[in-house]
Amino acid sequence: MFSSSPLMLLLSSVLLLTQPVSAVWPAPQSFSQGNSSLYLSQTIHVTYNGKFVRWSPSPSPSSTSSCPSFRFPHNDECSDFDFDHGGWTLTENSLNSQQLPYTHGYPPATLSSKEIVQAGLSRTLSSIFSSDFVPWMLHKRGELDKFEPDLHRQQHKWVKSLAITQTGKDTKQTFKPLDDTVDESYNLTISTQGEAKLTAVSSIGVLRGLETFKQLFFKHSGGPFWYTPYVPVKIEDKPDFPHRGVMIDTARSWLPVDDILRTIDALAMNKLNRLHIHVTDSQSWPLEIPSMPEVAKKGAYRPDWTYSPGDIDRIQKYGVHRGVEVYFEIDMPGHIGSLSLSHPELIVAYNEQPYHWWCAEPPCGAFKMNDTRVYAFLDKLWADLLPRLAPYSAYFHTGGDELNRNDSMLDEGIRSNKTEVLQPLLQKFIDTAHKHVRKAGLTPLVWEEIPTEWEIDIGKDVVVQSWLGGDAAFNLTKAGHKVIDSNYNFLYLDCGRGGWINNDNGEAFETFYPFNDWCGPTKSWRLIYSYNPRDGLPEDQAKLIIGGEVPVWSETIDSVTLDSIIWPRASAAGEVWWSGNKDPVTGQNRSQIEVAPRLAEMRERLVDFGVGASTVYMPFCTMHDAAECSYPMGPGYT
Amino acid sequence: MFSSSPLMLLLSSVLLLTQPVSAVWPAPQSFSQGNSSLYLSQTIHVTYNGKFVRWSPSPSPSSTSSCPSFRFPHNDECSDFDFDHGGWTLTENSLNSQQLPYTHGYPPATLSSKEIVQAGLSRTLSSIFSSDFVPWMLHKRGELDKFEPDLHRQQHKWVKSLAITQTGKDTKQTFKPLDDTVDESYNLTISTQGEAKLTAVSSIGVLRGLETFKQLFFKHSGGPFWYTPYVPVKIEDKPDFPHRGVMIDTARSWLPVDDILRTIDALAMNKLNRLHIHVTDSQSWPLEIPSMPEVAKKGAYRPDWTYSPGDIDRIQKYGVHRGVEVYFEIDMPGHIGSLSLSHPELIVAYNEQPYHWWCAEPPCGAFKMNDTRVYAFLDKLWADLLPRLAPYSAYFHTGGDELNRNDSMLDEGIRSNKTEVLQPLLQKFIDTAHKHVRKAGLTPLVWEEIPTEWEIDIGKDVVVQSWLGGDAAFNLTKAGHKVIDSNYNFLYLDCGRGGWINNDNGEAFETFYPFNDWCGPTKSWRLIYSYNPRDGLPEDQAKLIIGGEVPVWSETIDSVTLDSIIWPRASAAGEVWWSGNKDPVTGQNRSQIEVAPRLAEMRERLVDFGVGASTVYMPFCTMHDAAECSYPMGPGYT
Repeated sequence: MFSSSPLMLLLSSVLLLTQPVSAVWPAPQSFSQGNSSLYLSQTIHVTYNGKFVRWSPSPSPSSTSSCPSFRFPHNDECSDFDFDHGGWTLTENSLNSQQLPYTHGYPPATLSSKEIVQAGLSRTLSSIFSSDFVPWMLHKRGELDKFEPDLHRQQHKWVKSLAITQTGKDTKQTFKPLDDTVDESYNLTISTQGEAKLTAVSSIGVLRGLETFKQLFFKHSGGPFWYTPYVPVKIEDKPDFPHRGVMIDTARSWLPVDDILRTIDALAMNKLNRLHIHVTDSQSWPLEIPSMPEVAKKGAYRPDWTYSPGDIDRIQKYGVHRGVEVYFEIDMPGHIGSLSLSHPELIVAYNEQPYHWWCAEPPCGAFKMNDTRVYAFLDKLWADLLPRLAPYSAYFHTGGDELNRNDSMLDEGIRSNKTEVLQPLLQKFIDTAHKHVRKAGLTPLVWEEIPTEWEIDIGKDVVVQSWLGGDAAFNLTKAGHKVIDSNYNFLYLDCGRGGWINNDNGEAFETFYPFNDWCGPTKSWRLIYSYNPRDGLPEDQAKLIIGGEVPVWSETIDSVTLDSIIWPRASAAGEVWWSGNKDPVTGQNRSQIEVAPRLAEMRERLVDFGVGASTVYMPFCTMHDAAECSYPMGPGYT
Repeated sequence: MFSSSPLMLLLSSVLLLTQPVSAVWPAPQSFSQGNSSLYLSQTIHVTYNGKFVRWSPSPSPSSTSSCPSFRFPHNDECSDFDFDHGGWTLTENSLNSQQLPYTHGYPPATLSSKEIVQAGLSRTLSSIFSSDFVPWMLHKRGELDKFEPDLHRQQHKWVKSLAITQTGKDTKQTFKPLDDTVDESYNLTISTQGEAKLTAVSSIGVLRGLETFKQLFFKHSGGPFWYTPYVPVKIEDKPDFPHRGVMIDTARSWLPVDDILRTIDALAMNKLNRLHIHVTDSQSWPLEIPSMPEVAKKGAYRPDWTYSPGDIDRIQKYGVHRGVEVYFEIDMPGHIGSLSLSHPELIVAYNEQPYHWWCAEPPCGAFKMNDTRVYAFLDKLWADLLPRLAPYSAYFHTGGDELNRNDSMLDEGIRSNKTEVLQPLLQKFIDTAHKHVRKAGLTPLVWEEIPTEWEIDIGKDVVVQSWLGGDAAFNLTKAGHKVIDSNYNFLYLDCGRGGWINNDNGEAFETFYPFNDWCGPTKSWRLIYSYNPRDGLPEDQAKLIIGGEVPVWSETIDSVTLDSIIWPRASAAGEVWWSGNKDPVTGQNRSQIEVAPRLAEMRERLVDFGVGASTVYMPFCTMHDAAECSYPMGPGYT
């Protein structure tokens, strides 16, 4: 019935061809590689614009010992760290961000290119030399040694030098980029002679190149040696989209600062460059406002589940050092109910029942849009908050999603749910808010309902975040808006976990059985990867899609599951935004058979780093050719 | 338009009534509580059948110090641990199962009731006194102090004694229960005078009662004091189903022993009593067989991703001590491809392409059912393995799911896919396997295809695990089989994460877009809780459903996500199996509004213990009345 042999032979030869060409994630725009191996020397000579740069791992009491274990089996060469304590060394170690305090440059007098590059270099080399990522899982049982260089031969070749050249000059905006104002491109080569060269226009481009450099190395199974098997390497790289981010929600479930810092590290590993913090909502207000301490004191879930100005400063600077711009959203005029706990006079429809008359989820609550006390409160809020954020962010997000017309029915100053009544009030409200945002040197960001559903005139500088999918991005760009795409049909990472609203016995139970959530099923990495928000748009509109964000709304997600919800699915989105889901050379869609092994390797790198990313699939599939874990179709295969 | 006031008032009064009556999970069959508070004394006097029982927390070097911090603010009473080292104390501490070696009683000469009870008592009290579970999240902002007893008043009342009475005699089968051979019932009372009494027929019943005892206590926000606010307490309790379990899959993704031990602890916390380990499959064979070391050496993903006889012994005894029977499955004659790596002569269709001609997922592989070498191999396997498992398990699972007729087309000893050819061979194969299983004193378990699809005569002692849903359980019980229910439509915890098979561009991509998995969406705890496998069955058939298991197939799940996949959804299943999803008193379905707060509390207890359980929902909902996070229906609410 099934004649297996000739077909099987044909298939086998196809399988061999589908081995991934490299393991770098996101895939560089252009990548050529050889098959020679070089070890990375811990005495690597690094220069930055021609000047020698010292780096240091996190200091260790045993660092004065003379390489007791870092010795090749048949080699006298000692590969101990060559500490030079005379230079400018860094103590920050991104690997241990959860344990070590952020001490380096806090507060820094100024941010300098040199500081950014040297910190990045130290993190990169420390990260390689403390990695335990022996890639046995990427090879069939017993075949790792075919991939690894022989540790026992007499002569070892080394990556001995890394010459970093920055061809452009950083500006203030390099560290708080707006749209595409920062050139993140880089070129990286490693010659068979062990000379690595990294060239970039900006220091952020240098950081991107260092991430790629790091991913070329594996730990050897035979001991503490790290090698790249891909020499000679030649990479030319740059992102397709300037804005590539994750949105976290610290209002529905609070997140410890350490979680946020670890998320920034993981973003940087994936060459993602934005962290949007939806910091307040109707459920809680964890953001401390020193001029109005009552707001967080009463609005946070508990008194210590807050972010102090020091926390915010630390988070932003941690991001700047990794080329990740952290920006904040205070969602308004809806999604602000938690202010009612400290300022009930400002809020309408807080925790009114049944909630679905008043908003999308409990406990509701919106600003009274026609109340001078609201304006006075916001004047004070902006004056306190925005000057602190502006040095490290180009953006401030004023929200604007899901404002429910009914709320204003309860507002004694309005008593209407008519658009013609509410629209002018909202226009004034947004105008006033954005005036403050702009005055602080920040660019406003809003959810799409503001310009679409409410037809608010927002000005062309304002960036619009779109989540509704369908024609939304088309219509927004057609209208000339710059768009950040967060199409919920593809990018909402919290979807597919089941509904979280309680359904009482009877009608609710029957209506909502089997209790799926509104936006399920789960957006798998395969679905996320299939989607490029520029596809199908005319070129002039496509250009207005400046990037995307994967939102992680936290109705059912907290610190325990944060990592596994975000990663590696945000990695998948990240590659689409960096170099697309099509091969830049052939223009063809990248096959899952090519993508999955690289993503699976990236997952292992994330776990090695300390990020609790979910598996792509079982080790059998990572160990074997990815085509063996595929569903073959075509003639004879249906 | 919306007249809010009278309706709102009505709703508010309803909300008050829906506060959960207690926080014990799973809900006891009968529970009455008061509203007095007692602290738990660390010098609590415990007796077991009238004799004084000493307990000890994990020994600490500082235990000789005289209560420096364990002191009430306005009280001279010292609540330091009163160590008495003269007695029989235990060093095992389940709280630190990941760090501490399992030293107690390993290997034990015999298992005794006293040993089980004393170890359980030590774990229970250690667990309470090291808990950090201050239940702020179960109360509105600032209202925890209304719930907590006042730490500053002069007189504190204590739970001073715990009298444990075991009314029956344990047998060997108590520690390796078959069906309903162990009485897990218990009665627990705590009087306002601080006298606790726990009565049970078996030592396992004592363990169940101790778990309930533990859940009555909270840590005080004011310091290291633990109290119960529910005195007087009176609980009568027993399970509805004798078999209540989780199935883990260590073949598709390996799991470290520590993960398995932690899972056993979490099972015990939820009064679940079975851990089914699907230990081998076509992807890998991590089970060491000392008489045939090549099997795991070549079949495991890597040489150290195995379970030694010592590991298996440790896992089983760890389970016995917690009233959790650990039993193993070697799935056959399909799902056995990994044996091909060490014994290719025994296996057919291993890693044949395209896989879906030969099995449900790569890499396939089945026993040659007509080959004497297979019988010889299995003789050796059974002789090695079963005597080691039998002292601590009543069951051994021989698998039998998803055998694909086509495999035998490639088998040179069969060359047929006809049922009339294969069925007699399979009957002989199963008969022989089960003869060995029975001879070792174990009861065979099989997947349902064996008696249904293949019409194999298995004997009435064999328990059938059903996963196919629909009429499967009805038909199996109608035919007189004892059934463990794992209906995939409700109980497969791995479903809903998206497909993991790679889809090449073109036909496969188009066919499988948007890449959902076969059994999605996610089985939420609400769906799981809605399902009782006995519903709708005639009483005589319902009795044959001896219980259920939630399977955690590990194509996309490994150590990183194990906890959050299992918990708290297995807790939801556990309550259905323990006391049902109907209120035992009223007979009405328990509302999600009543269930969700208790499950949310249980989740916090799991996290406090060190189990990375997912959230039920956001803190806003746990802090407020659950009805505020419900979708109200009925007149005026649609």
